[in-house]
Amino acid sequence: MIGVFDSGVGGLSALKAARALLPTRDFLYFGDTAHLPYGTRSPESILRHTRAALDYLLSEGAEAILVACGTASSVALPTLVDNYPIPVFGILDPTVDAALFATRNKRIAIAATKRTVESGAFSAALSAKDRSIRSLGIPCPLFVPLAENGILDKNDPLLHLAICRHLAPLRSFGADVLILGCTHFPLLSDAIGEIYPGVALIDSGRAAAAQLLSLPQKAESGKTRYCVSDDPLSFVNTAELFLGYPILAERVCPCRSEL
Amino acid sequence: MIGVFDSGVGGLSALKAARALLPTRDFLYFGDTAHLPYGTRSPESILRHTRAALDYLLSEGAEAILVACGTASSVALPTLVDNYPIPVFGILDPTVDAALFATRNKRIAIAATKRTVESGAFSAALSAKDRSIRSLGIPCPLFVPLAENGILDKNDPLLHLAICRHLAPLRSFGADVLILGCTHFPLLSDAIGEIYPGVALIDSGRAAAAQLLSLPQKAESGKTRYCVSDDPLSFVNTAELFLGYPILAERVCPCRSEL
Repeated sequence: MIGVFDSGVGGLSALKAARALLPTRDFLYFGDTAHLPYGTRSPESILRHTRAALDYLLSEGAEAILVACGTASSVALPTLVDNYPIPVFGILDPTVDAALFATRNKRIAIAATKRTVESGAFSAALSAKDRSIRSLGIPCPLFVPLAENGILDKNDPLLHLAICRHLAPLRSFGADVLILGCTHFPLLSDAIGEIYPGVALIDSGRAAAAQLLSLPQKAESGKTRYCVSDDPLSFVNTAELFLGYPILAERVCPCRSEL
Repeated sequence: MIGVFDSGVGGLSALKAARALLPTRDFLYFGDTAHLPYGTRSPESILRHTRAALDYLLSEGAEAILVACGTASSVALPTLVDNYPIPVFGILDPTVDAALFATRNKRIAIAATKRTVESGAFSAALSAKDRSIRSLGIPCPLFVPLAENGILDKNDPLLHLAICRHLAPLRSFGADVLILGCTHFPLLSDAIGEIYPGVALIDSGRAAAAQLLSLPQKAESGKTRYCVSDDPLSFVNTAELFLGYPILAERVCPCRSEL
């Protein structure tokens, strides 16, 4: 079984990609909905919640974990990744590789949560692989609530205005690649692509899922279990936006101290 | 000392009103920023976090507590209020009284978080006081992120569109009073008032603060301490939007089980 972790529904886009790549594998998806959004929390809180989530997935028998959350990957994984006896994949490295492959003018922008942008993790990872890259982090605080509320139609003037407001620096900076550094943001891809047709969009969740191909092949039942740390109903209602089909979810409490 | 509690910065509008009414009193403001936003959490989570906050303020010596959070007031206070040896004021009753005083056509709308609207608390409180009132709860999930990100200018087309999107039912319902049932929403008053000039807006935080006048007069130093459960810096940056002046805040951990 492979664990997939996000603060909420965003990681479902990565899960969907992972299931398509490994259709015979079992998955356990954990959304830490009691503590979302991670993107505005302090680094210490993000570290604590991420550790609890990884411990939970490990205790459930995960053979590998995909951290499909841009904030947890950027802020917490560098500290945590070596403490686990199983492979723990974040979204940072594969996303950066995909962005470097796509850019021609070596200017890469990163749309992400406030905390991910502040961490500088994407920019540091880009520079570490190619010192000639110029990068620009763009905090996009309205994108998560827009996606969570299903405001996704590319012809919606509200969505159009919000995208233009947040991504205005993209044109002046002259990026030809935009990393969608939060797993919610691919839901806005159609709308972003229509406004910035010359910019290649990198879906961090999809890029991250490809790492799972390095795991040994295994025939399991191909089933997925969905667990969340707060109300399953809210999760289930939004999940269909990401997956395109209905699911069931159960509530779990991975952080014993909160019981 | 009087305790004032909200999930984040929203309650600062109630604090400001309370300080103006009781300038010689000391206040302790607690923002439970580690768990915001309350408006999307499950009722059990809201109950647990509200109890921890009230216990913390009581242990710090509060003689009375103002719960300046629409969600906590609607979802948790009915269960908790009788368990405390000090007066615990919510925003519900005074806000409802103000709305009933203002309406002429007996149609009252309530703009609030998803969870507050689902609780039906405002509608029930209105009906309990006047059975002829017709009320309509309107969930406004984008208002908190807009306010938190300082998108407040009434001439801002993005804010204008978001308000029209959420409050569209106001016109068809024919309300002449709109309760701003979340303490963030008064920041949007100017913009809402411009779009719906014939609708009286009821500021729940300000209405709630007036309850403190029932407390005994007392000459203290007139100082306010600000405490939050996550990163003080984010809080302090947004607080100035509500208060109009800079503050300092410290981090506390009221929920022992999370230490």
